[in-house]
Amino acid sequence: MPITARPITTGVPTRKLEAFLRANEQMQVLETPFVVVDLDVVAERYDSLRVALPVADVFYAVKANPAPEILRMLVSRGSHFDVASPAEIDMCLAAGADPAVISFGNTIKKARHIADAYAKGVRLFAFDAEEELGKLIEHAPDATVFCRVLSDGEGADWPLSRKFGCEQEESLRLLRIAAAAGMKTGMSFHVGSQQRDLTAWDRSLEIVEHVASALAADGHMLSLVNLGGGFPGIYQDNMPPIEAYGEAITTAIAERLCGIFGDHMPRFLAEPGRYMVADAGVLRTEVVLVSRKHELDFKRWVYLDCGKFGGLAETMDEAIRYRLRTRYSSGPGQEFVPTGPVTIAGPTCDSADVLYDKTDYELPLALAPGDHVDFLSAGAYTTTYSAVAFNGFAPLQQVCI
Amino acid sequence: MPITARPITTGVPTRKLEAFLRANEQMQVLETPFVVVDLDVVAERYDSLRVALPVADVFYAVKANPAPEILRMLVSRGSHFDVASPAEIDMCLAAGADPAVISFGNTIKKARHIADAYAKGVRLFAFDAEEELGKLIEHAPDATVFCRVLSDGEGADWPLSRKFGCEQEESLRLLRIAAAAGMKTGMSFHVGSQQRDLTAWDRSLEIVEHVASALAADGHMLSLVNLGGGFPGIYQDNMPPIEAYGEAITTAIAERLCGIFGDHMPRFLAEPGRYMVADAGVLRTEVVLVSRKHELDFKRWVYLDCGKFGGLAETMDEAIRYRLRTRYSSGPGQEFVPTGPVTIAGPTCDSADVLYDKTDYELPLALAPGDHVDFLSAGAYTTTYSAVAFNGFAPLQQVCI
Repeated sequence: MPITARPITTGVPTRKLEAFLRANEQMQVLETPFVVVDLDVVAERYDSLRVALPVADVFYAVKANPAPEILRMLVSRGSHFDVASPAEIDMCLAAGADPAVISFGNTIKKARHIADAYAKGVRLFAFDAEEELGKLIEHAPDATVFCRVLSDGEGADWPLSRKFGCEQEESLRLLRIAAAAGMKTGMSFHVGSQQRDLTAWDRSLEIVEHVASALAADGHMLSLVNLGGGFPGIYQDNMPPIEAYGEAITTAIAERLCGIFGDHMPRFLAEPGRYMVADAGVLRTEVVLVSRKHELDFKRWVYLDCGKFGGLAETMDEAIRYRLRTRYSSGPGQEFVPTGPVTIAGPTCDSADVLYDKTDYELPLALAPGDHVDFLSAGAYTTTYSAVAFNGFAPLQQVCI
Repeated sequence: MPITARPITTGVPTRKLEAFLRANEQMQVLETPFVVVDLDVVAERYDSLRVALPVADVFYAVKANPAPEILRMLVSRGSHFDVASPAEIDMCLAAGADPAVISFGNTIKKARHIADAYAKGVRLFAFDAEEELGKLIEHAPDATVFCRVLSDGEGADWPLSRKFGCEQEESLRLLRIAAAAGMKTGMSFHVGSQQRDLTAWDRSLEIVEHVASALAADGHMLSLVNLGGGFPGIYQDNMPPIEAYGEAITTAIAERLCGIFGDHMPRFLAEPGRYMVADAGVLRTEVVLVSRKHELDFKRWVYLDCGKFGGLAETMDEAIRYRLRTRYSSGPGQEFVPTGPVTIAGPTCDSADVLYDKTDYELPLALAPGDHVDFLSAGAYTTTYSAVAFNGFAPLQQVCI
């Protein structure tokens, strides 16, 4: 079924976002392309996940959108933070976060960056290899270190490679080394971003069950289980509600780990990124050109002022398919707007800067240069993916309201 | 055959680059990752193309590497410039370029950006669609406008989509509209970046021949033919020398266009980007981690501090396969260095940030964190592709020497 720009039925964009977009159109404060993020949506997502999954501390994956306004608001709500780099640690500290609530979740860290993080008070570190564990034992001696195991990534929209995590058997070997070195230990996994399959957590928790059980037989108990991310934003399809994720994970935890840990369950962490910020954001673009390769072509090319190198990197292989909106399709009850198939591309001179060609998008036949095309649920993984100056185009701007 | 990091036989990196890298290692001025560019190589490439293809004015494709030092050096040598955006026009002007030597080669332009460019003195504009031509007739009335036709892109390493250019028949229709509006006209094509097939230009010139001939029958002569880019950098394979490109193109021009234009040939343009700067640059990275997913794995994972979102975007689909170099493989006459297969990945928490997995790269078994891995011929399409702050990692630095 072709994907047509269509009215929104999910409550996002919020009225606050709509009011901002209208005001900006009248006053021309921000030139396209830009992202506008409604902080209330982020707050609501945080609260909803806390309620749906009360067993876990929420560690916001800063990489999804590190806007200072978002970090400050989450600090005020008691959020914890998952960081990928030294700069993200500094961003969290600058936003007022206690270093004790920061987890250095990247399994790939320079030794000096581990030492710096430790000196700043960070006490939670990920690893998936013996060499990395060695760095942690040396530079973060009394930290809690958690070993990431491989997940299959089945059911996830964003491709999950074998880049992160090790095999189950290897994780047991490494955790025994960590335990022997006197470290507090944990395990982590990531079921894949935008995960549609609620049983994915159970499959990874089965690995945790086996490893935790073998360690318990050694007399060593895991201190922590990191449930990762994978909680969805709303793109084209209806995803299960967050309550369904919470229930599936809580049930899986009980079935897999109660027998091992009884009343002394490890600490649980969740690392939502996309879920927290995607639906909070609208990315507004302007149509630069609508063309046909031949006068009689049925399918048009629509070129926007934001492309794959300007923030829409997740259109890679057309993996994330955003909902689009134009002024011709603004609400229910309006008259029928004729649409036609389009290929959608960015503004750079790069042939690879094509957003959607295989996916059947349709846009109004009346669409013309100067019209806006809004990418909805675009608050995650957009601004920071933006290139510094590819083809001379400025990085994507963002405003939080 | 697996690709092993190996001694260089092509004259690059130059002694000047090597001296810089050695000095930097001693004095630690620049932290990895960074690109260092030898301006002498860029100058030599410019001169070589002028000699190999004397019929054409060289318009450097600024997007390949817009470093001010490169632009200033090329201005001093008499180069012309192909720009993709208003910011690139300003960069050229800031480097001292005359607006008359600037071609606005992006077929996707906002009307106000055309007007701005025209006001600054730019008089060469690309288009490939009726709507864009309309903007040019309105906002750049006495400019030369050239219509880009589609190329098949066969023989090119970097994927060429149908994003740019129109069908032959459509180009004739559009050029007739331009001629009727009193515009000076031209045609352009792009055979695809890193083009291995020297007959590719002839195939596109055949289209030019048909269209130019039909226009000549109308009494309208094309003023300009833009031969595009496609001239190579040296990655894994030996490419034909630039002289062979010059000869193939000159011959094709004579065979295709002499009959139409006789002694009044149109102006010819060439738009080299990669060819001019790729071999001039070395991208130095540091190994962050070497790991195995299982203790007994044969293939290692090597994680570097620069990845797909830090400047190495052209590893997308493993399209551009850089020559790699480590300290274990620095020259001929040295002892045998045992190597093994690797997957090479970047430092971010993104699963898609894997550089080479399918391509058979080998790196020394002794490779360890802290070692450098140099990407050779990395002076093109690296710094500007770099993300502003993905995962908190700073954009790729560059220094020109």
